[in-house]
Amino acid sequence: MRRILLVLAAAAAVVVAVAGAEPVLRQVTDVPTAVSWGVSDADALFCDSWRLSVETANAGPWRTVPARCGASVRAYMEGERYASDSAVAAAESLAFAAQALASGEGGAMPAWVFDVDETLLSNAPYYAVSGWGPTQTSATPYLSAQNSQYPSPAIRSHGEAISSFLATGLQEFNETSFDAWVDVAKAPALPSSLKLYNELQGLGFHIILLTGRSELQRNATEDNLLFAGYNSWEKLILRQISDIGKTAVQYKSERRAAMEAEGFKILGNSGDQWSDLIGLPMATRSFKLPNPMYFIS
Amino acid sequence: MRRILLVLAAAAAVVVAVAGAEPVLRQVTDVPTAVSWGVSDADALFCDSWRLSVETANAGPWRTVPARCGASVRAYMEGERYASDSAVAAAESLAFAAQALASGEGGAMPAWVFDVDETLLSNAPYYAVSGWGPTQTSATPYLSAQNSQYPSPAIRSHGEAISSFLATGLQEFNETSFDAWVDVAKAPALPSSLKLYNELQGLGFHIILLTGRSELQRNATEDNLLFAGYNSWEKLILRQISDIGKTAVQYKSERRAAMEAEGFKILGNSGDQWSDLIGLPMATRSFKLPNPMYFIS
Repeated sequence: MRRILLVLAAAAAVVVAVAGAEPVLRQVTDVPTAVSWGVSDADALFCDSWRLSVETANAGPWRTVPARCGASVRAYMEGERYASDSAVAAAESLAFAAQALASGEGGAMPAWVFDVDETLLSNAPYYAVSGWGPTQTSATPYLSAQNSQYPSPAIRSHGEAISSFLATGLQEFNETSFDAWVDVAKAPALPSSLKLYNELQGLGFHIILLTGRSELQRNATEDNLLFAGYNSWEKLILRQISDIGKTAVQYKSERRAAMEAEGFKILGNSGDQWSDLIGLPMATRSFKLPNPMYFIS
Repeated sequence: MRRILLVLAAAAAVVVAVAGAEPVLRQVTDVPTAVSWGVSDADALFCDSWRLSVETANAGPWRTVPARCGASVRAYMEGERYASDSAVAAAESLAFAAQALASGEGGAMPAWVFDVDETLLSNAPYYAVSGWGPTQTSATPYLSAQNSQYPSPAIRSHGEAISSFLATGLQEFNETSFDAWVDVAKAPALPSSLKLYNELQGLGFHIILLTGRSELQRNATEDNLLFAGYNSWEKLILRQISDIGKTAVQYKSERRAAMEAEGFKILGNSGDQWSDLIGLPMATRSFKLPNPMYFIS
């Protein structure tokens, strides 16, 4: 019980920290890169390999970041590598998009699908406060690796198995505090995604947002997208009551099928989870954005 | 013409270098890791992101390593990162294999499919001599970025579009010298793959090798596999005359379908190219081994 209260207190602290003023938000690219992160060479080598295995889907379903990789994931996310990896993915997306459009592949209704969390919006400020901030020696009393309730009934009701990395304790996802963060609607854009988004709109793509967030979070999500600089979109698709219990792959594939039935040609799809991208029908090209923090099946 | 002769001379040098005695072969893990490779921070950052984009397939089809990434790819391949990334992929493969077999998923004929080049066998010694050995200031007169014959008729006849990284000059694939290297049959095992292979055999998997190499290279391939320590396999499938003109995806998918028709349950598939892994039917789980050197569609 004490543990739950501490989690709620931490969640409240996040809300207070971010609700104040924009400069409180830490942009992922703000942090100096030459800092020593306290990652040993052996851990850096292993954890880079582990991270690659996540990005290639070799790791399969996973629940927590390996304990030895907490500091490494923090260094990755707060340093310049996350920004660089995202930027290269965006550049490759744009190169393909321009070529595909020029060759007429898109037909009358060329479309691009974007996921929201860790794709258009970065929840890095949330994880920085709630999770990856503490070093391995800090006191983090609310962290627990022994959460036998995983996935919680609430998470299962979303039909997704979300697990969260946390630096010291392999903490699993806390839906209460994350939902509070979503309601604040102050997540910044992933900068390279915003740039890509604007370029694709300029090229004439129909932009469709397809997120695992609930329909109940529509207003907060729209507010947040506008806050982050996304000015317009063709559709914003969220999970309905009827989607409860579906995996992300099933839910998102069904919606892509519906888009195609409406006449959209889905040339590109950008997401930080393989479950955003796989399943039929697939986009002509899919772009995996980095995310070493959590896995959604 | 002089250029062609130099290529042949280089190929001959490879053959002489490796045909002598085993110690001449450079194992990819032999090289000290603390060496400065002359890669600038900016290049290292970009090239790591580029390499990730290759491994996630974000890069799509590509013909050459970006010019600024030659030294970085060399550092990756000759340093400890390639070995580490391969080892983590193998460990994840084994963890899945053991669990899948224990749960009875494999039925009566559980099978694992392996590609050969850069999966079971490492052609690192070939690329070290023919390509990535020279630093960016070395004279490498046979390197050329202006090969308008790409893909060459010979490569197209294999139905594959292979392009090769080379450190200084974005050199494209030279089939003559590579075939000479194959005939020598002295490519070493990728150590983590050999370990995985033996473990899977111990667990009772049917091991099927599926390679883009030609049936004409069967003897050399068998000799090389034995040389590298692979003692037995259920099948070694190579491209037949009837496979000329097929993409790797088409050729390999057809062969996986045939395996399933024979009663094999393909639980796992290991390959360094996405074209080894995608296409229907797919294995229950596919494992992408690293390869920043070349792309096969």
